[in-house]
Amino acid sequence: MTFASDSVGLVEARRADFDTPLALASGTVLDRYSLCYETYGELNPEANNAILICHALSGHHHVAGRYCEDDKQAGWWDNMVGPGKPIDTARFFVVGVNNLGGCHGSTGPSSVNPATGRPWGSAFPLVTVPDWVESQARLADLLGIRRWAAVIGGSLGGMQALEWSMRFPERVANALVIASAPKLSAQNIAFNDVARQAILTDPEFHGGDFYAHGVVPRRGLRLARMLGHITYLSDDGMGAKFGRLLRSGDYQYGFDVEFEIESYLRYQGDKFSGLFDANTYLLMTKALDYFDPAKAFDGDLVAALARVRANFLIAAFTSDWRFAPDRSREIVKALVAAGKRVSYGEIESTHGHDAFLMTDSPYVALMRAYLNRVAEELAA
Amino acid sequence: MTFASDSVGLVEARRADFDTPLALASGTVLDRYSLCYETYGELNPEANNAILICHALSGHHHVAGRYCEDDKQAGWWDNMVGPGKPIDTARFFVVGVNNLGGCHGSTGPSSVNPATGRPWGSAFPLVTVPDWVESQARLADLLGIRRWAAVIGGSLGGMQALEWSMRFPERVANALVIASAPKLSAQNIAFNDVARQAILTDPEFHGGDFYAHGVVPRRGLRLARMLGHITYLSDDGMGAKFGRLLRSGDYQYGFDVEFEIESYLRYQGDKFSGLFDANTYLLMTKALDYFDPAKAFDGDLVAALARVRANFLIAAFTSDWRFAPDRSREIVKALVAAGKRVSYGEIESTHGHDAFLMTDSPYVALMRAYLNRVAEELAA
Repeated sequence: MTFASDSVGLVEARRADFDTPLALASGTVLDRYSLCYETYGELNPEANNAILICHALSGHHHVAGRYCEDDKQAGWWDNMVGPGKPIDTARFFVVGVNNLGGCHGSTGPSSVNPATGRPWGSAFPLVTVPDWVESQARLADLLGIRRWAAVIGGSLGGMQALEWSMRFPERVANALVIASAPKLSAQNIAFNDVARQAILTDPEFHGGDFYAHGVVPRRGLRLARMLGHITYLSDDGMGAKFGRLLRSGDYQYGFDVEFEIESYLRYQGDKFSGLFDANTYLLMTKALDYFDPAKAFDGDLVAALARVRANFLIAAFTSDWRFAPDRSREIVKALVAAGKRVSYGEIESTHGHDAFLMTDSPYVALMRAYLNRVAEELAA
Repeated sequence: MTFASDSVGLVEARRADFDTPLALASGTVLDRYSLCYETYGELNPEANNAILICHALSGHHHVAGRYCEDDKQAGWWDNMVGPGKPIDTARFFVVGVNNLGGCHGSTGPSSVNPATGRPWGSAFPLVTVPDWVESQARLADLLGIRRWAAVIGGSLGGMQALEWSMRFPERVANALVIASAPKLSAQNIAFNDVARQAILTDPEFHGGDFYAHGVVPRRGLRLARMLGHITYLSDDGMGAKFGRLLRSGDYQYGFDVEFEIESYLRYQGDKFSGLFDANTYLLMTKALDYFDPAKAFDGDLVAALARVRANFLIAAFTSDWRFAPDRSREIVKALVAAGKRVSYGEIESTHGHDAFLMTDSPYVALMRAYLNRVAEELAA
């Protein structure tokens, strides 16, 4: 197998170990931790062409490329990152990182707690979007990146891009916040809580310390993922793809798969529950719930954004009901009111929230145009 | 305690036993069964003033009134049914019935199977909306009601009203179909399947025969109900009522209740899981999934409605996203195309799908106006 000319090709994950204690928002201090990351492209001598990709709920550091020649699965944003692609690795040095608390190599609940020699489990502290940004800043220091050309993320990743712009105004030239929101709504939190309750009440969860029991709360994680998928797709998109299609032509009057949509959801749930760590899932949903940068400013998002210096691209998708365009417009309006530079793209798509991972051409064109300008400004 | 003048007052449930075998849509035949029902008001000598109330997923025959003087809980539609209320028991003879497969007295999975002397459990057949209508028609025969002045229902109850109009065109003068749909969408089915999987994979479900084990799949039923509640409320309504309100003022960084919306959902789930039968829940969601009167007509709802003779009131609520107004308009358009008499009310409400149970004044006025005309036509 040879790689396509717009692929970053063979990549490998690296690990950065940090032993400066990290004080978390919860009050807990993490004495040491590791972050798994990947890089694509070359950092230029001025070290000003770096882009950070922040991942969403179930993402990780493996953003683009493949681990071996016959690797069937490319990185999760391989359609967007590569030489000549919108996030162009011929021009930018791109960094992907697995967040603290993750389950893809960075320190998290399934890692061994050095204090006990056993997996952290329930003892791993909850982390927040600001905590992640703090830890990512240390990775940036390590890589010699003083200021990002761009911090980019979709959904929960977009919240990190927004947080970066507020927490480190001098270190972010551009923030691309895609299919995101300035905070979760009651309905968003409600969906997260049902997912969490599915995991927390699974008898095999064992209060978070299931590792010691040699089991995994698969039932709960499967339900959480099934529910998640409903909120990632649009009603119309789901209707167009699955409708009321029946597996075997007619009703079976039982509880096995009857409708194709059931087959799809159960398959997604089964697959995920065998791969993902339940504690990480809980932690990621909590980070979503907690994100609310206006909270420290009496709910005033304009005040929260007063310090930002980045240019913004805010993008939303018409059929996304998890983080509907209205939620992105809240950010846009606050940025405008704060006198900041912001571009807003509202993209027609039937892909719902998942659209941020898709290759809808108006979306790709928007990302390409915006990042072209960023690259041109660097070259100027 | 005395009852309000517009209350039906003290009521009691009755039981009707049927021993004529009922051939179900699934192909199974139910040799005998009982239906629990209540009636309010008086059947007139012409027996033409009867109204049937069809219940939704978790409803039952106890529509109005109270069982004793200090009964804290009135029937589920007590705000709509009573002397002088929109469904006026001073003018109409109102019948509420617990559907076959229910868990409030009618024969269902938790009833004793006469063939074994043990609860039916997994052996109870799945039933459909047409099956229910067939069984309700036998109850009508028993009560001496040849033709209903109206068949009324919200949500799954609306599907029964619609089915009545198609299955027994001569027996329905008016059909009131509220917050309903002509069939479920892929997203509707998806939510139902997650709820079912929560129950089916609960270790205490025991394949539906948990009764023999002295346990109840409370975890699964609780999750199903929590999820259901999200779909009953609107995003805006939930936001207005709960927003991001915190139980104790600030983040706790744990998995106990933090946000008020979590408290609400968990409370609803806990309460329901102690009261409702898990097999009935499964069966009701399947009846929802299967309802599709156009299916036998190659998907042509206009053709399916060709035989109806009733007058229709179709009502929908602006913030209902479970069965959005668009779904009601599908019914309206098909009725119009079939040359039938239909009124359509789209009611502003923030109550989401639950609005059909609420006392929003434009809704109450619409029901009152429509049923006033029905009563006046009877008197004429």
